Amino acid sequence: MSEVPITFQPSGRVVYVLPGTLALEAAAQAGLAVQTPCGGRGTCGKCRVRFIGSSPEPVEVDGKTLSPEQLADGWRLACQHTLTEPARLFVPPESVYGTAEQILTGDKHVNIEIDPAVRRQTIRLAPPTMEDPRDDLARLRDAIGKPVDIATPLLRHLPRLLRQNNWTVTVTLADGRIIDIGPGDACPAPLGAAFDIGTTTVVGTLMDLSTGREVAVAARINPQTAFGDDVISRILVTREQPDGLERLHRSITQAISEMLGELAVDAGIATTEICEVTIAGNTTMQLLLAGVWPGPLGEIPFAAGFCDGLTLDAADLSLPIHPRGRVYILPSIGGFLGGDTVAGVLATDLEELAGNSLLIDIGTNGEIVLARDGKLWAASTAAGPAFEGARISMGMRATAGAIEKVILDGEVRINVIGDKPAVGLCGTALIDAAAGLLNAGLIDSTGRMLGDDELPANLPPAIAARVRGAGSAVKFLLTEGDAGRAPVALTQRDIRELQLASGAIRAGVSILLERAGVRADQLDAVFLAGAFGNYIRRENARRIGLLPDVPIERIHFVGNAASMGAKLTLMSASARVEAGAVARSIQRVDLSADLEFQMKFADAMIFPE
Amino acid sequence: MSEVPITFQPSGRVVYVLPGTLALEAAAQAGLAVQTPCGGRGTCGKCRVRFIGSSPEPVEVDGKTLSPEQLADGWRLACQHTLTEPARLFVPPESVYGTAEQILTGDKHVNIEIDPAVRRQTIRLAPPTMEDPRDDLARLRDAIGKPVDIATPLLRHLPRLLRQNNWTVTVTLADGRIIDIGPGDACPAPLGAAFDIGTTTVVGTLMDLSTGREVAVAARINPQTAFGDDVISRILVTREQPDGLERLHRSITQAISEMLGELAVDAGIATTEICEVTIAGNTTMQLLLAGVWPGPLGEIPFAAGFCDGLTLDAADLSLPIHPRGRVYILPSIGGFLGGDTVAGVLATDLEELAGNSLLIDIGTNGEIVLARDGKLWAASTAAGPAFEGARISMGMRATAGAIEKVILDGEVRINVIGDKPAVGLCGTALIDAAAGLLNAGLIDSTGRMLGDDELPANLPPAIAARVRGAGSAVKFLLTEGDAGRAPVALTQRDIRELQLASGAIRAGVSILLERAGVRADQLDAVFLAGAFGNYIRRENARRIGLLPDVPIERIHFVGNAASMGAKLTLMSASARVEAGAVARSIQRVDLSADLEFQMKFADAMIFPE
Repeated sequence: MSEVPITFQPSGRVVYVLPGTLALEAAAQAGLAVQTPCGGRGTCGKCRVRFIGSSPEPVEVDGKTLSPEQLADGWRLACQHTLTEPARLFVPPESVYGTAEQILTGDKHVNIEIDPAVRRQTIRLAPPTMEDPRDDLARLRDAIGKPVDIATPLLRHLPRLLRQNNWTVTVTLADGRIIDIGPGDACPAPLGAAFDIGTTTVVGTLMDLSTGREVAVAARINPQTAFGDDVISRILVTREQPDGLERLHRSITQAISEMLGELAVDAGIATTEICEVTIAGNTTMQLLLAGVWPGPLGEIPFAAGFCDGLTLDAADLSLPIHPRGRVYILPSIGGFLGGDTVAGVLATDLEELAGNSLLIDIGTNGEIVLARDGKLWAASTAAGPAFEGARISMGMRATAGAIEKVILDGEVRINVIGDKPAVGLCGTALIDAAAGLLNAGLIDSTGRMLGDDELPANLPPAIAARVRGAGSAVKFLLTEGDAGRAPVALTQRDIRELQLASGAIRAGVSILLERAGVRADQLDAVFLAGAFGNYIRRENARRIGLLPDVPIERIHFVGNAASMGAKLTLMSASARVEAGAVARSIQRVDLSADLEFQMKFADAMIFPE
Repeated sequence: MSEVPITFQPSGRVVYVLPGTLALEAAAQAGLAVQTPCGGRGTCGKCRVRFIGSSPEPVEVDGKTLSPEQLADGWRLACQHTLTEPARLFVPPESVYGTAEQILTGDKHVNIEIDPAVRRQTIRLAPPTMEDPRDDLARLRDAIGKPVDIATPLLRHLPRLLRQNNWTVTVTLADGRIIDIGPGDACPAPLGAAFDIGTTTVVGTLMDLSTGREVAVAARINPQTAFGDDVISRILVTREQPDGLERLHRSITQAISEMLGELAVDAGIATTEICEVTIAGNTTMQLLLAGVWPGPLGEIPFAAGFCDGLTLDAADLSLPIHPRGRVYILPSIGGFLGGDTVAGVLATDLEELAGNSLLIDIGTNGEIVLARDGKLWAASTAAGPAFEGARISMGMRATAGAIEKVILDGEVRINVIGDKPAVGLCGTALIDAAAGLLNAGLIDSTGRMLGDDELPANLPPAIAARVRGAGSAVKFLLTEGDAGRAPVALTQRDIRELQLASGAIRAGVSILLERAGVRADQLDAVFLAGAFGNYIRRENARRIGLLPDVPIERIHFVGNAASMGAKLTLMSASARVEAGAVARSIQRVDLSADLEFQMKFADAMIFPE
């Protein structure tokens, strides 16, 4: 079988694929991460692409989300069609995950005590004499001053290395193991990289291990999104496809490898100068990175393959760093509370804070940690996808063309990412719009949207004009649309999805508060973390009940806490010890097993009055 | 360049070699370990072979040990001639190192406390439940009852392995690391192999790690002998030839690999069922096995690359055992006191004995350890080669055709190995003959042999008839020879070589006794170890002064102590701790740096009256 050329519009990029390749995967090869919130089941309709020229026969599920006109016009679901001959495909921007634009790479400054697992030092040895005929390794160990192990290839070169360099060498140590010996005349700073592997986004930071300086940052969409948007979809892939685990594992290790390459290029170094990589991710992401089957997380009782912090050889993951470099994976708390949550605790020093503090990290999942005088409780919810655009009729990620902000102050004012015509809305706008509609009386506390037949009397005309239809077909137009473009609208169903997502997080918070015996008004601080959490309007989030009712000044944005935690463990071996202690001591609250949760959840879906 | 066929006689074996290959190496390829005591310098004449049909032009050094008749007959030194075209070569048995016949594989029984570094156990786990959702690795670790590391490939398979085997598995642990997980329904005994790598011979024993039972034994000549008989020759090869280290390293690892294959065949198992290998050898042998450059041992101050006990991955040495199997190398004491000496101490429990004990291990080198109430002193001498036939005019190893025993009781009685016509003599016969000649008055205490012109009056005629010539040309015939075969004779020069070898060991013993403040007659025990030590006649060795003057009943044969020690460290992790303690605590006495040694040496060359 010879490969066939596939041309992608508007970029014009051509890739060659084997006949039978899914359109979705061909797009991925062309660098286009097409959205698949439903995991390729054909139910969400987000992966629509248009075949230019000849198009394949529509399949049944195409018709569920595409109109007959669209089908006639060549629109198809990329997750449903394989390519067997040369083709031209138009991929609309709204079908593609964002570029790095709004992927959160920054984070607040945390004081790092510099105590990295990887160190480099220049060692000057006294040459052996008849009075002091110690062997080379003992001589080196004694000079380092502690018992160290040595990699076999280095031991082999040790006698020549020491003599060629006149008994002065630069030694790189990783956790009590010598991983490199170089000439003694130069001692370049050792480098490391910290990665936050989110379900949707991956962020990597290259750091100078001797100073903690950030040398370069890279971010990209997790290429595993091609296998499904949420962790459950990916777990299913590893359960249902014989090579599923291997493909997901390679997908993320290859992305990390490429990002390491980008970081190295940015810093003007070779990737082999990077001696260590630390990884924070949710449990499934960490298992997939290590290549460990996450299948059991797909069924009760959700047991993970490993949870303790783990150090692997970079070579085991085929990462292009130092040949004896290492990969440290943060400890997880359980099946759905991963190293990213532990990293968030480290980054906010939650375990050290006096009083009551709450950490909410909303990414594709929502993780919640409550601290009461150093005692910790944690829970996770699958709330995130709605905030990332999944299950919202015109939902999309925070990328170009997405409405990211909505203000209803007598009229409808919006902000669109990338200063382009709006094609959808992202999570922050969803919250803004819902809060605005609640305040305007267009949504009641049960979440019901008022139809154009029952508008409140004092409603500003500009707002009233945007309400269309009634009953279950009611919509609120955020844009009016024009000849070539449909309006961006919010539906009753979208509000229901928001209630589910927001309610899940709020119910989780309630359960944790109850477990800890803390009332919401006793919270001294609420920390918002994660790619989504950092862009929301606190008042609006509080208005819809996503955040507990605490004074705004107690709600803090803490940036990408998972990434910050990964950096902490890169820069500080004692942070790894701390991470282990946090993971072991934290009280895991399994909401799915909690009878109260369903009650709280139902309560929390009601918007505050 | 295409390879040319070389046919070896009498076996008829054909090998193909690249033009330019040394005859010596071609022979090695045909499985013939041709003797090269001089390290291939052409000075010893031991590697003589005969070209059948056309023979290469003789070189100058050929003529130094071969007669014009021999040269005309096609005899050449295999270390001097390269092969450029097809050839037929006759290799006489006396040019080849022995088969395993007399390589010492047995050793006295030592009680082993079974506490191996590698253990196997069947683990029954409770499956995870919502009440007990521990991760798989934690579940396994908790069941094992101690913190254990796990190899990455195993971690990857862990979730499936546990579930496929219904939560009952057999786990193989090596020093706190899980190296294998198998089905739980069978728990085969784990196997290990202990090797003694001598300069000349290699002995390996396959053992059942759960019982200490010896399952199989293999022995062969160290193929590195093709690069030189003694450690110094091999060290020089690594200093003078760019690929010398690599060739010597591969030579021994390949031999060990083949022997592991033999052991596995004997035991009816796969080599991958062997989980661990332990190695005892002199420092140079251990460095070469690990692939560490021993070059610095060729010059003052003789610093070794490493001395501490070392555990390597078997994969680093390309040994065909379990893919995650390990290789433990015993600690060395210094440049010329290796893990074999430490192993000997372990095997004789020298560090535990009350009173004064002496261990003499005569292999290619002679190592001496003196113990006084648990305090240890050690020294090494390069005495061995003479006892292995090197530098003795008709000397040879203890192989077929070698006289191994000589009795002069009115006539000359000899025993020949393999019940064949005598072609030379080995070390035990050399000692026997010298002791007999001393007793007969045919050698005086300075080592001078009496000529046929000055025979004592009362000499039995059968003995007198064997003395030929006078002055420096005097010889004593051990056999008369016949038409086709030259007599096997002992020369004045041979006696001088014996005095040097014996004197070196005796002087070393004297120095150690002096350091420890012990007189020879205060020795409670003398342990003789090693391939040579176990075949000598104690009275005769004492007669020539090789052994100190202690009652015969205090002199004990302890077999292959180095091999025994290697087995001890295989069967007992605490023996490894003990080995480290012995290596660190032992007082190393460097004879080459000892001014007194030269004096003692001169004294010790005088035979006792």
